Amino acid sequence: MTTHRLGRESIHTVWDASLPPALRVQPGDTVVLDTLDASYGSVARRVQAGELPLPGHLGPDLLGVISAGVYPPGELTGGQRGHPLTGPVFVEGARPGDTLAVELLKVEPAAWGWTACRPDGIGLLDRLLAPELPADGYVHVWDLRGGTHAQFLPGIRLPLAPFPGVVGLALAEPGAHSTSPPRQVGGNMDIRQLVAGSTLYLPVEVEGGLLSAGDLHAAQGDGELSGTGIEMEGRLTLRLSVLKDRPIATPQFRAPPEPTDLWSAGSYAATGHAPDLMDAARTALHGLIVHVTREYGLSVPQAYVLSSACVDLRISQIVDAPNYTVSALLPLSIFG
Amino acid sequence: MTTHRLGRESIHTVWDASLPPALRVQPGDTVVLDTLDASYGSVARRVQAGELPLPGHLGPDLLGVISAGVYPPGELTGGQRGHPLTGPVFVEGARPGDTLAVELLKVEPAAWGWTACRPDGIGLLDRLLAPELPADGYVHVWDLRGGTHAQFLPGIRLPLAPFPGVVGLALAEPGAHSTSPPRQVGGNMDIRQLVAGSTLYLPVEVEGGLLSAGDLHAAQGDGELSGTGIEMEGRLTLRLSVLKDRPIATPQFRAPPEPTDLWSAGSYAATGHAPDLMDAARTALHGLIVHVTREYGLSVPQAYVLSSACVDLRISQIVDAPNYTVSALLPLSIFG
Repeated sequence: MTTHRLGRESIHTVWDASLPPALRVQPGDTVVLDTLDASYGSVARRVQAGELPLPGHLGPDLLGVISAGVYPPGELTGGQRGHPLTGPVFVEGARPGDTLAVELLKVEPAAWGWTACRPDGIGLLDRLLAPELPADGYVHVWDLRGGTHAQFLPGIRLPLAPFPGVVGLALAEPGAHSTSPPRQVGGNMDIRQLVAGSTLYLPVEVEGGLLSAGDLHAAQGDGELSGTGIEMEGRLTLRLSVLKDRPIATPQFRAPPEPTDLWSAGSYAATGHAPDLMDAARTALHGLIVHVTREYGLSVPQAYVLSSACVDLRISQIVDAPNYTVSALLPLSIFG
Repeated sequence: MTTHRLGRESIHTVWDASLPPALRVQPGDTVVLDTLDASYGSVARRVQAGELPLPGHLGPDLLGVISAGVYPPGELTGGQRGHPLTGPVFVEGARPGDTLAVELLKVEPAAWGWTACRPDGIGLLDRLLAPELPADGYVHVWDLRGGTHAQFLPGIRLPLAPFPGVVGLALAEPGAHSTSPPRQVGGNMDIRQLVAGSTLYLPVEVEGGLLSAGDLHAAQGDGELSGTGIEMEGRLTLRLSVLKDRPIATPQFRAPPEPTDLWSAGSYAATGHAPDLMDAARTALHGLIVHVTREYGLSVPQAYVLSSACVDLRISQIVDAPNYTVSALLPLSIFG
């Protein structure tokens, strides 16, 4: 069993089965991937250069840089870049119909992270909250150097639970595909349970699977509500195996117990009830943001990006037609 | 502060602001409500009479009795009964625009519970799984007398976390309204976090609020996937208060930390990625049911009702258009 490394020279920004493999590995091998964040490193560079207030509203220039990258991702067009992904990794013996098991051995966070919202982006409430968001967007920069927690404001801090936002395989369908939507082969799934200790199972569509990963988040709630978790650069260590007799239709995963500290003080939640789960989710999150601004004195953009970093969307019931229920749960341990 | 009691003589089966209050209480008072399950007590009576195998497939006769009640609920029509609810309770001083705070002091489980699925009901996968479900449905009866856990099959047991499936207020809109869908005043929300120790906040639309509750569940996953949790009779103790300066648009709640034992062994999950969250949820649950039948040797109806009792639907991301991600999480602690 060999350990391989891939640096940031192996960044690509589309899913495309015709991309040449950056690495060829045997089943059972380990790969260490250096990854870039969705700002292509801009935020970290600006922080290190002392150019950013912490926490800070970055203003139109940096948000412009981020937008030129993947926020908002939008559909892939000629000149537009997708998420910066490290790979592809060709796994010998992986054939269409097999399942690739991806053990997440280690997810190493960076020193700085960021969470953004804007009135015209991809976030769940961008349009509804637009009158209360800065026209050029709002970016909160997090100091992650403590390693276990990050402070949002005095008296508000989150435990870190780093995971890759994107892990996926190449699609069989020819051509370049946007990195934005996740698909049956995985990709930008933003599943916060994929922390170190978890195993992700992906269906293989092309020879070698062609795995790529990136877009690490230091923390995120179920939903990624404003469109970004705590975005960061980092390093990902994976062990790859091929399963021959265990076909799956969509990605599956095994996850370790969630750390108990985040929910140790219980939750406060708002609910939505509607024929469409998207509408129910919007109502639930809006109720919660109103609550957070009123109860804790946060501004609307602050409440929105904080929610993206730690609020969970649960489908409470999906059977009581014509109204289905979504609850937006805020962990109360983050306060004080 | 007084404690009041309401027995099962106060059952009603629609939401209707013109129903005469069964009880009038002062803010701060406690009410103890005896509740019926969605089978109107049929299952428990049959078990006590020794007429049911445990766990058991109840056959068409009893499922017929259940169906005549509320399973499937369907829309309210002349002769059709809704969920049996205990109430209404008139809270003095509660006025439209106020918020009623409902502290859940105690939720006492019954001796027997049941979880059902059928090929033509309200469950998320009824139609998809129909060829593999008994034509007349499948009902699993649970022995809840242990008080803390219930066994599903040898080697599979769930911790109990009892809560009321229905807590709500009368709507201002005149007439009789079906108990099936939850609404802005609450009702059949099936929020499993509403265990003893939680507080539910409901917007008041009519004088006195007119609270009713019922449909207790001994346990349920986020989603109530087959259309029923572990349905049971029981007793609910609530303390009611009126908040004058805290308007809310939809129900909100504060919940205690979830018991950690259910998720202490981590989770196994399947995922769905689709433009519609309902489709994503169907794909995720179907992948998980295939996994459970393959891995643990359960039949499809067994896997389906077990999922309804303990699998959580999480919205992993709701921002990566055009595909949104739902993960169906199975707690691994239930095995062995």
